[in-house]
Amino acid sequence: MTDVILAGIGQTEVGEHWGIALRDLAYAAIKEALADSGGLQPQALFVGNMLAPNLSNQAHLGALLADHFGMRGIEAVTVEAAGASGGAALRQGYMAVKSGLVDVALVVGVEKFTDQVGAGVDEAVATASDSDFEAVQGLTATGQAALLMRRYMHEFNVPADGFAGFPLVAHANGAGNPNAMFRKAIKPEVYGKAEMVSDPVNLFDAAPNADGAAAVILTRADLLPKEFSHPLVKIAASAVSTDTLALHDRHDPLGFWAAREAVEAARHKAGITLEQVDFFEYHDSYSIYAALALEAAGFAPRGEGWKLASDGSIALNGRIPCATMGGLKARGFPGGATGLYQAVEAAIQLRGAAGPCQVAGARFGMMQSLGGPASTAVVHILEKIEA
Amino acid sequence: MTDVILAGIGQTEVGEHWGIALRDLAYAAIKEALADSGGLQPQALFVGNMLAPNLSNQAHLGALLADHFGMRGIEAVTVEAAGASGGAALRQGYMAVKSGLVDVALVVGVEKFTDQVGAGVDEAVATASDSDFEAVQGLTATGQAALLMRRYMHEFNVPADGFAGFPLVAHANGAGNPNAMFRKAIKPEVYGKAEMVSDPVNLFDAAPNADGAAAVILTRADLLPKEFSHPLVKIAASAVSTDTLALHDRHDPLGFWAAREAVEAARHKAGITLEQVDFFEYHDSYSIYAALALEAAGFAPRGEGWKLASDGSIALNGRIPCATMGGLKARGFPGGATGLYQAVEAAIQLRGAAGPCQVAGARFGMMQSLGGPASTAVVHILEKIEA
Repeated sequence: MTDVILAGIGQTEVGEHWGIALRDLAYAAIKEALADSGGLQPQALFVGNMLAPNLSNQAHLGALLADHFGMRGIEAVTVEAAGASGGAALRQGYMAVKSGLVDVALVVGVEKFTDQVGAGVDEAVATASDSDFEAVQGLTATGQAALLMRRYMHEFNVPADGFAGFPLVAHANGAGNPNAMFRKAIKPEVYGKAEMVSDPVNLFDAAPNADGAAAVILTRADLLPKEFSHPLVKIAASAVSTDTLALHDRHDPLGFWAAREAVEAARHKAGITLEQVDFFEYHDSYSIYAALALEAAGFAPRGEGWKLASDGSIALNGRIPCATMGGLKARGFPGGATGLYQAVEAAIQLRGAAGPCQVAGARFGMMQSLGGPASTAVVHILEKIEA
Repeated sequence: MTDVILAGIGQTEVGEHWGIALRDLAYAAIKEALADSGGLQPQALFVGNMLAPNLSNQAHLGALLADHFGMRGIEAVTVEAAGASGGAALRQGYMAVKSGLVDVALVVGVEKFTDQVGAGVDEAVATASDSDFEAVQGLTATGQAALLMRRYMHEFNVPADGFAGFPLVAHANGAGNPNAMFRKAIKPEVYGKAEMVSDPVNLFDAAPNADGAAAVILTRADLLPKEFSHPLVKIAASAVSTDTLALHDRHDPLGFWAAREAVEAARHKAGITLEQVDFFEYHDSYSIYAALALEAAGFAPRGEGWKLASDGSIALNGRIPCATMGGLKARGFPGGATGLYQAVEAAIQLRGAAGPCQVAGARFGMMQSLGGPASTAVVHILEKIEA
């Protein structure tokens, strides 16, 4: 089948963007992606967004953004799968190009988490859980993470600072990413002194809600303009799996089943082993999610994912570099834009343009976008095409 | 290219479903569609929904519905384009099957408009407009329709009862649809006495917000099970176009430009003339939208679409039968489910199973799903494959 190429990438800084409208944030990322593509003209727009209908009182983002960018008339739609909205939108764009119905697809993820004019952020995020059975009881996303982390620590005898390595690596890498929300490495003792958000999840175990937009252009290899001058990166595989939305419906809450299924399906489609994956952009909205995602993917046995954080495995020069440009923890977590940030960062890595964050000689990059506690898991494997 | 077949259809009654949860409403439609398909197993679920995050405090419907139906693990995502969400979800399912990445796609539209636990319905619907510039000024969807209708009446000298034929035909047809919200024909004098909702839009010029769910199964012709016993209906064409989200940004507010573009693109793809279209399921959320959609599609010259309502043209035995099973006006307008109701009803027509609503000898059915004042327009043409 035809290769689908990441033919343009763009992103804004992640942070608190109170002075810029949702549509303008998306505009900035789209503009950069189109320029990067060397002049491609998209025929379809897929918008990854999680909470704009609640936080910004704005649904119908497809028509809004297509018009705002001067692309009035093109096909445009919003794709939502909670925190995995960005990954899901990328997959819709991929399918559109694969189908032959669309030659050039633009996928943009945009979210304004911190600057709310509608509902409050906790109330809004709770709509992504099983509202009738979880949110109404007062369970928040961070509360869910705390339940999982506590159980994990109990089952596997994890010490209080057992998860410290996840934010330490993320912040160390974020320091080298000019678009990261936090660009400063943190010291181990800072983790130990951090306030609890929802015991045992401390301030550094939870990724910051943020504002941002990231965009990619997808097209077939034969449609690349002559002006396209970057090393070629293709989508080698795309896979989605789902699990129960409610955490209490799981037989095995510590097994991120959908995360495992999606990784296996993607690896199978790409025809590669786990050892061939050069880096892994996981969805570290919470430290415990990072540990469970490493185990689900097969990088660590059950109950031992946390050890990879402190033994050097996930560092840039480790066995399986993770959160290479800061991850959700240090780059920030701009909701439905997150999966697109992962795609942009993975493309930068595979182009060899990641500067201080570079993973040497990377050929295959895997990224995973999660909605809820891996209730939705979207996995893409990107591959650098050797010249 | 491979034909994509509507291999299963299901729907619930449209109405006020206060006693049944959103997930159970979707369940009922999915169950019927799967049974109708003769045993197909979907690998992917596309959910068309407009306002559940606001009205029902529930986003992340993909994972929720996949699990609730016992299909845990399958790919699942929500597709949103305001009132066109159902049509947009159908298109994503179509692209998924066309791409070869998915063999069997399930597309379900579900909405609970009347039974709100979250935001109020006017506030929620306003998120589908250009919130920063329209909703904050107090402009509602019905207010937009009133502005368009008043201008249209002024420009083209339309009498006060000029639009009466639209609800009259819709209600006459709805009387024959066991799933319609209103199953009773109305008399012309009733229209004249109706209360104003937003002058000149009266009660019968506005479709009722409703609850409901409708589902279709899509697959390739070669994957149909032997048990599938219905006449074959395929998606002959699918097209989407967009216009400005804000009505005030239009150079020509009375030209539903995106609606025209999408119809032309779909006709071109299907390779048929306008005369070959045997019926047209338009998006008659307001009578004025029906008139403008008829003109945009080319069934009437500018300023004369309203005449088709009273001269018999849109009746079941007319030149271009519309709202054949009641349309949005009499079947009801269950938000993001509406586009799927259109698909289910069009398939019933093409199977020759529409009973008192049957359009004799129908081969090509066109349906149009609109978001806002045709800010998004999704058009599908279905075709009965001759045995």
